[in-house]
Amino acid sequence: MIEDTAEVELLPRRKAQGYRAEDLAYRREWLKQRTGASLDIVGAHALDSQSMRGNIENPIGAAQVPLGVVGPLLVKGEHAQGSFYVPMATTEGAMLRSYERGMVVLTRSGGVQTRVIQDENRASPVFYLPDIGAAGDFIHWIRRHETKLRELADATTGHGHLLRLECAPVGRQVIVSFTYSTGDAHGMNMLCKATEAACHWIIEQTPATHYIILSGHSGEKRATGGLLAGGKGKKLIAGAVVPDQLLRHYLRTDAEEMQRFWNSTVLAHFQAASLGHNAQLANGLTALFIATGQDVANVVNSAVGIISLERTREGDLHVSVTLPSLTVATVGGGTHQGTARECLDMLDCLGTGKARKLAEITAASLLAGELSMSAALATGEFVNAHENYGRNRP
Amino acid sequence: MIEDTAEVELLPRRKAQGYRAEDLAYRREWLKQRTGASLDIVGAHALDSQSMRGNIENPIGAAQVPLGVVGPLLVKGEHAQGSFYVPMATTEGAMLRSYERGMVVLTRSGGVQTRVIQDENRASPVFYLPDIGAAGDFIHWIRRHETKLRELADATTGHGHLLRLECAPVGRQVIVSFTYSTGDAHGMNMLCKATEAACHWIIEQTPATHYIILSGHSGEKRATGGLLAGGKGKKLIAGAVVPDQLLRHYLRTDAEEMQRFWNSTVLAHFQAASLGHNAQLANGLTALFIATGQDVANVVNSAVGIISLERTREGDLHVSVTLPSLTVATVGGGTHQGTARECLDMLDCLGTGKARKLAEITAASLLAGELSMSAALATGEFVNAHENYGRNRP
Amino acid sequence: MIEDTAEVELLPRRKAQGYRAEDLAYRREWLKQRTGASLDIVGAHALDSQSMRGNIENPIGAAQVPLGVVGPLLVKGEHAQGSFYVPMATTEGAMLRSYERGMVVLTRSGGVQTRVIQDENRASPVFYLPDIGAAGDFIHWIRRHETKLRELADATTGHGHLLRLECAPVGRQVIVSFTYSTGDAHGMNMLCKATEAACHWIIEQTPATHYIILSGHSGEKRATGGLLAGGKGKKLIAGAVVPDQLLRHYLRTDAEEMQRFWNSTVLAHFQAASLGHNAQLANGLTALFIATGQDVANVVNSAVGIISLERTREGDLHVSVTLPSLTVATVGGGTHQGTARECLDMLDCLGTGKARKLAEITAASLLAGELSMSAALATGEFVNAHENYGRNRP
Amino acid sequence: MIEDTAEVELLPRRKAQGYRAEDLAYRREWLKQRTGASLDIVGAHALDSQSMRGNIENPIGAAQVPLGVVGPLLVKGEHAQGSFYVPMATTEGAMLRSYERGMVVLTRSGGVQTRVIQDENRASPVFYLPDIGAAGDFIHWIRRHETKLRELADATTGHGHLLRLECAPVGRQVIVSFTYSTGDAHGMNMLCKATEAACHWIIEQTPATHYIILSGHSGEKRATGGLLAGGKGKKLIAGAVVPDQLLRHYLRTDAEEMQRFWNSTVLAHFQAASLGHNAQLANGLTALFIATGQDVANVVNSAVGIISLERTREGDLHVSVTLPSLTVATVGGGTHQGTARECLDMLDCLGTGKARKLAEITAASLLAGELSMSAALATGEFVNAHENYGRNRP
Repeated sequence: MIEDTAEVELLPRRKAQGYRAEDLAYRREWLKQRTGASLDIVGAHALDSQSMRGNIENPIGAAQVPLGVVGPLLVKGEHAQGSFYVPMATTEGAMLRSYERGMVVLTRSGGVQTRVIQDENRASPVFYLPDIGAAGDFIHWIRRHETKLRELADATTGHGHLLRLECAPVGRQVIVSFTYSTGDAHGMNMLCKATEAACHWIIEQTPATHYIILSGHSGEKRATGGLLAGGKGKKLIAGAVVPDQLLRHYLRTDAEEMQRFWNSTVLAHFQAASLGHNAQLANGLTALFIATGQDVANVVNSAVGIISLERTREGDLHVSVTLPSLTVATVGGGTHQGTARECLDMLDCLGTGKARKLAEITAASLLAGELSMSAALATGEFVNAHENYGRNRP
Repeated sequence: MIEDTAEVELLPRRKAQGYRAEDLAYRREWLKQRTGASLDIVGAHALDSQSMRGNIENPIGAAQVPLGVVGPLLVKGEHAQGSFYVPMATTEGAMLRSYERGMVVLTRSGGVQTRVIQDENRASPVFYLPDIGAAGDFIHWIRRHETKLRELADATTGHGHLLRLECAPVGRQVIVSFTYSTGDAHGMNMLCKATEAACHWIIEQTPATHYIILSGHSGEKRATGGLLAGGKGKKLIAGAVVPDQLLRHYLRTDAEEMQRFWNSTVLAHFQAASLGHNAQLANGLTALFIATGQDVANVVNSAVGIISLERTREGDLHVSVTLPSLTVATVGGGTHQGTARECLDMLDCLGTGKARKLAEITAASLLAGELSMSAALATGEFVNAHENYGRNRP
Repeated sequence: MIEDTAEVELLPRRKAQGYRAEDLAYRREWLKQRTGASLDIVGAHALDSQSMRGNIENPIGAAQVPLGVVGPLLVKGEHAQGSFYVPMATTEGAMLRSYERGMVVLTRSGGVQTRVIQDENRASPVFYLPDIGAAGDFIHWIRRHETKLRELADATTGHGHLLRLECAPVGRQVIVSFTYSTGDAHGMNMLCKATEAACHWIIEQTPATHYIILSGHSGEKRATGGLLAGGKGKKLIAGAVVPDQLLRHYLRTDAEEMQRFWNSTVLAHFQAASLGHNAQLANGLTALFIATGQDVANVVNSAVGIISLERTREGDLHVSVTLPSLTVATVGGGTHQGTARECLDMLDCLGTGKARKLAEITAASLLAGELSMSAALATGEFVNAHENYGRNRP
Repeated sequence: MIEDTAEVELLPRRKAQGYRAEDLAYRREWLKQRTGASLDIVGAHALDSQSMRGNIENPIGAAQVPLGVVGPLLVKGEHAQGSFYVPMATTEGAMLRSYERGMVVLTRSGGVQTRVIQDENRASPVFYLPDIGAAGDFIHWIRRHETKLRELADATTGHGHLLRLECAPVGRQVIVSFTYSTGDAHGMNMLCKATEAACHWIIEQTPATHYIILSGHSGEKRATGGLLAGGKGKKLIAGAVVPDQLLRHYLRTDAEEMQRFWNSTVLAHFQAASLGHNAQLANGLTALFIATGQDVANVVNSAVGIISLERTREGDLHVSVTLPSLTVATVGGGTHQGTARECLDMLDCLGTGKARKLAEITAASLLAGELSMSAALATGEFVNAHENYGRNRP
């Protein structure tokens, strides 16, 4: 369908289709001739090119992102228990130092409690109905046929399971959210396939004229208020009490100053019409996602979260992070090979049965970054810290 | 300050401080002994470890992400003109094929117009005042002393320039947004330093008792309604008219179907309380950011955008993307070395004077992804496409 | 507890406590002496002062708002069927003319279909738990004890019924949404009382240390993204197909122009980070609420809605309004007396069993205003219309 | 244009056009015959029917809403200074008692400081351009012609003045915000007319093909994140320090409990994806707006605000309210007659030069309601208070 013409010089797919090392080399050479750019480092990768099939098209090599490690981080979850050293990939100087500082303080405070409250994922197709009355009837029909729709959806997959259906009409259109358990996978491909099976039958059986399999309503890879209500990924809470004495010793602040800091940034977030409240959730998420082979674009939904810093009646500081829509996986996608596999292995999070563990380690890691950056901002040390560790250091 | 104890075994920083290859190897070995994970591929990187200084701490190697290329993409901007082959790093199968398809259609349609409407970045410190009256007076004071504050801020940097000051009181606290031009750099470190110089003087001269240099109000790396009002990064528009005939030939859809599709997803986005509207902005942004050494966490603010698909009076399709807060840089951060440098070079976007060009190529690339995924969803081909190119393909 | 002192002259409550006409007169006289303002028209009301008890404190009379009527409006709902003349109270010139115009066009188009999709209301207390683990356990406990909690809540009321419980943890706090059917009443007082009964038992039985009965999470009288997900009030859809020919004849526009208008305002709403999309929902809601004795402050949650204008394949216009959180009542509050009672009677919506009917008439009325104002804006007649009917007309 | 037919029986406009008392009576009689509803109380109003012209169409009488008064409220603003008794119209029992309690405590605490930070209003037309390049050029053109556009706009009005122009492109459309000072009037009619004059010239001079005078972007009568950035109405801050001792004596709470309460409700608001944070802003706004003849639908934009409760270092409580988009007027609309005129007079806010004073009294009144309701919720007295004063009291 996509044809080469004089004006539109396509990539040499036909000539060098495939994932062999020489296919990649051919493309690099072709690009070098057209753009003048050397692609030697791109080509000097340690990934098996054949195993890229299914993860990328038109491969030419690998991007390499500096990788470091921070810890120890003591986690007291239901799935993650013990002390972890956490891999993070980034080029933002001072960031790992910030997370490391927070992890050590949290560990010395007795560790981070975490809980997975919800673990699911969803697709939200939208159906077109002829009119308002038909839309109303359609909703009743969907509710009556939930069992049959579950059978159809579940028959397409060995891993996922349809948990529930929810209808949201907007005018004569009806959004139907199909929410699934997805095991240890991200699950979007699986649940789209399962949902499509159900949709085909809905179209046959109802006056709905057609549908769009992904309406955008689910919040996948976008920032929506609806994410806070759940349904997209894993919902976690993580928290710890940091003794006032440790705040003073390690972070040069105290519980009262941190409480005031939080109050103030909360007001600024409301003033900005922010979805949620945080210091640097996106930093930790991105660095962990790149390191562990996640679908990094999911940082957009995963970063919608809420931080609390609360001086307790005893004068210590309770810190917490709430993540309503964290997307992490330990099977599928980019998790199976290369540096991602090694990084997952470092956390003992490789393969089946490990996704909730990875989620708990992620939440606890993010809490460390929130604590550390909040302290740096509250005490006014933030800019200096970046001067010391950031780009321009001699 | 961070001490090793029996209970909290810190990373061996003292023993192997630094960025030499053997320092990284030492850390990998240390981790291998504690976690049992092999880190051989992590260690098999092509980056110069010494040059990681300033970009990361506790380095152990590099994360490697599959890298491909898509194009050609014809861009008709003010800063980017011509045909480009765009590097993208991802592990999400079918994604590059989707962007490539959109790029070819846009190129055959005559290319993508782009404009940089605004180019700036900001820090938004918040100041504490004693009471409401003092907050009101403080705002007047700031407005009267804008010239002096500009002098103080600009004196700290050779690259940035304070463009304007804006005050937003919330109770007795006042958020003062310092908005700068930042040249070709991301600029957060620079503008924090410049802003701090101004803040010191404000604290001396006014009843403000203290301040927080980053209140969260600016929208850096978080999703806020305020981002749409501008001030964070580059604001761009990009668009093209795709003839109905090309829609039919290449995308198996037409302008009317695409218009209906857009209407429907718009309703779903409102129903989800979404910030903006898009199909897959986060995918393209993340892949481009990893490839070109951007601060990938900025995908969170950059992905707040608005897509339009509009059937013209002539029956063709006008597609557009509006990006109010895109953060890209061609100097500083992770842009200077390794695979990032090569990828920037492939786009002729290396170094000074190239950031707006990179921004325009980015916007045009994202438009391609929106067009292609919208067509796949509108026609119902989306799931099949993922079956063909995604993970489970034999 | 509130004492009179020399500095703080309280209202003469003790001297003239009560709701007799002379009590109101005494207060008016007292105010007149202190402020110099005549309150004769305030005193010239037709409400029975004794019946104000329970609706207001410190009464001095009544505010009088101009009241008009618009129609006919043909409604084809499940609860409202037939032609209605709708009372509206306002001082905004041209507004009733706008609604009337829309109603007549909708009626000539065959009437407005409406459906009540959901009918409920909620309180969302927040509970404090000692730590993250306890918060996780608390959620499981609530889920296990839903039956008992329903018994406790339902025992306090003859009208409401607890439909479901939902938990949303934020850090170590847990928001528990108690969602009720409320019959024909607004129901906030009733459901607060019912919820409090359940909360008392929760506090006895769990480690929760205390709770706040209204956390703000429910969206009562505030604008939240959560309202779109439902649970606060009645969720309705209403819609109609307006033939292109009627658009041309009565509104001097056509389906294509209206589609373009909608596209354009949608983009402007996204750019404004708007919750929902509409032309003038607040106008009609406020006017209807004042006329019919509703709690007018509920216009804030009721006005979060979504309008669609969609050119059909046949070239006509499908218009719809979606109201996720409409609050209307036909018993309790201000509905039982005076002008409110008469206005409800005019709609045959007085008393028990009529709330959904009132909701459907409200939704259909709002649709008329959206259609009419959209047409006025699309055609450029809006400003002239206000010139003709608004304040400055001779 | 709107014709009577057999099927669609229009209101008897031709037979009884006009605003004479007998015209209203005729319409009431006509309605009574068709609906069976008595409209005697509707007809027993004290408003001069002739003076309703310009405020409403098809008048049949007046809605009467119970009116009470609360105070004293000591205000220390720039425009309002002294002690006020504030009129409020509502049917929500216990509400006035709540506001009164807060006012007395604030007055005893030394009064409420208020400041008007911004005072303006805007229309935000959207222009259609042929393509992205033309949209970019259009923005430059608008910026270059600001002086001329100001002349054109200002020439249409003796009261308003164009303060500034701001452009926000979305794809190939450009929203141009015209922001005006509006004196003591609400100003929407005036500024629409002024803006239209400028728009006509823009259409003549530029490639823009057409425009929509109100795009919805301004946030008038809708809830948008953009309202927090200002431009719609008056932006105010109001605050007070309430001594811990007064909290204990009058509100049975203390500064620490109130701080914890605020922390907790803040988290619930973030979880709800709320625009701003408050306890009951909509209640006070609605009651004041009905009493003083405001355009009550503006409660939707006015209720977007932010409350803070902050324990000071001295252990007292600083309370504040921030209102970014309050719409109040003392001339025009419904302010000139009847009970509205009397209520404005009671506040010495009648006519020219009084709008900012009314705004300050409004902000201070709202603060009282926030303080009082927050205390009732924090202490658990809320439900009991409603039992005592609300509908079901014997």
